[in-house]
Amino acid sequence: MTNPTAAIIVIGDEILSGRTKDKNIGWLAEQLNSQGIQLREARVIPDIRETIIETVKTMSAAHDLVFTSGGIGPTHDDITTECIAAAFGKKVIRHPEAEARLLAHYENTGLEFNAARQKMADIPEAAALIDNPLSAAPGFILENVHVFAGVPSIMQAMFEGLRDSLPGGVAMTRLTVQCAIGEGTIASIMESVQAAHEGVSIGSYPWFKPGQFGTAAVVSGLDQQVTHAAAEALAAGVREMGADAEIMPLGEGG
Amino acid sequence: MTNPTAAIIVIGDEILSGRTKDKNIGWLAEQLNSQGIQLREARVIPDIRETIIETVKTMSAAHDLVFTSGGIGPTHDDITTECIAAAFGKKVIRHPEAEARLLAHYENTGLEFNAARQKMADIPEAAALIDNPLSAAPGFILENVHVFAGVPSIMQAMFEGLRDSLPGGVAMTRLTVQCAIGEGTIASIMESVQAAHEGVSIGSYPWFKPGQFGTAAVVSGLDQQVTHAAAEALAAGVREMGADAEIMPLGEGG
Repeated sequence: MTNPTAAIIVIGDEILSGRTKDKNIGWLAEQLNSQGIQLREARVIPDIRETIIETVKTMSAAHDLVFTSGGIGPTHDDITTECIAAAFGKKVIRHPEAEARLLAHYENTGLEFNAARQKMADIPEAAALIDNPLSAAPGFILENVHVFAGVPSIMQAMFEGLRDSLPGGVAMTRLTVQCAIGEGTIASIMESVQAAHEGVSIGSYPWFKPGQFGTAAVVSGLDQQVTHAAAEALAAGVREMGADAEIMPLGEGG
Repeated sequence: MTNPTAAIIVIGDEILSGRTKDKNIGWLAEQLNSQGIQLREARVIPDIRETIIETVKTMSAAHDLVFTSGGIGPTHDDITTECIAAAFGKKVIRHPEAEARLLAHYENTGLEFNAARQKMADIPEAAALIDNPLSAAPGFILENVHVFAGVPSIMQAMFEGLRDSLPGGVAMTRLTVQCAIGEGTIASIMESVQAAHEGVSIGSYPWFKPGQFGTAAVVSGLDQQVTHAAAEALAAGVREMGADAEIMPLGEGG
């Protein structure tokens, strides 16, 4: 069984200029992988029409699911919506439901629902809205592309709302074998354990603390039993070299 | 005058799995832009040979400078060096100077300089070494591709060592116009100020604090005078609407 694949496109000059540090790739990567969707690529691209259109087309064709963040606000540099529509040959329409939600939101806040803000009700035809419980302006789904706001709290709230409707897969089993020994010393053990366990991959991540160093070997695979067996084999190999090795769920191992 | 363009390639399954949060894109973005190199794209890709080779070829052809991070350690999943060599049709050789540095480092630390660690002395022929003052294993420059380690502290130390030798450009002037008003209210002012100042671009970044909200408008351009004039015009327009506006250097404006 193959898990769905996904790509993330972060759209925004502010990330490429270094002004804003991206938080969306890391957060989304964790969420997608935890529900069995395999993130295969992430791209950060500028607010340039042709670049956005080409990147969306390429990623949409290459992966089961695409997630974008950024560029759906009210200002002139927010061009994501029209670019995604153009990538699929769709028109942008004033969406009645989106407009109603924004109208209610701005009545509530006392801010004028002017032309710039009305632009946030423009959605590609045939797209489904994604709820925005924080600031009303919706995201949308067109074909396999899921369009989120760039502000991390809004992006996360949008994702939570549609999480259950995403096509899932078998969540990967991921184990950390925490080894009190340098990665260079156990490189050949990791390599042979990976080769001996079909479908298992081992990532090696060295760490350093004052006076201490070691290796977090992340053992992952779709088959739970084989993945556990690989982790046991690796830990046994490390212990044979006289070093401590402990198997723990991913995330606890540093 | 056109500034050099650059792309970043972050290589590593650990970023795409969400296990490790990337810190290299944001840091490098800031450094490159501050010395007049325009970062145009960043990609996070998995440890897959064909993907690395294709991405390096594409980015190397599209941009003046390419920076990679990750995948030059001693273990089986460290395949960046051989892939970069393959992208340019070069062989990988055991580099005498790299070997000497590693040998001295491991003699010093008391760790065995075994086959896995010796692999870090393998460098594409014709490449120039990049110093690694932290853990000895060098990065390298091949054609326009600069190959760094993935560990942020090592990547940063490597970059600092070659910073002065990078082709620079005119550093962009970037000013933040900090506006105590929602971006939707001043969207049309920003658009018309940008249109009236050639070569200037204005990015709009809304912010929210308890009981307060506003917009940081980032005004940037290669011409210092025109950029300052645009910032002044924007601030004046915002003040005409009865809201506070303050011009400050980038980075101080939230």
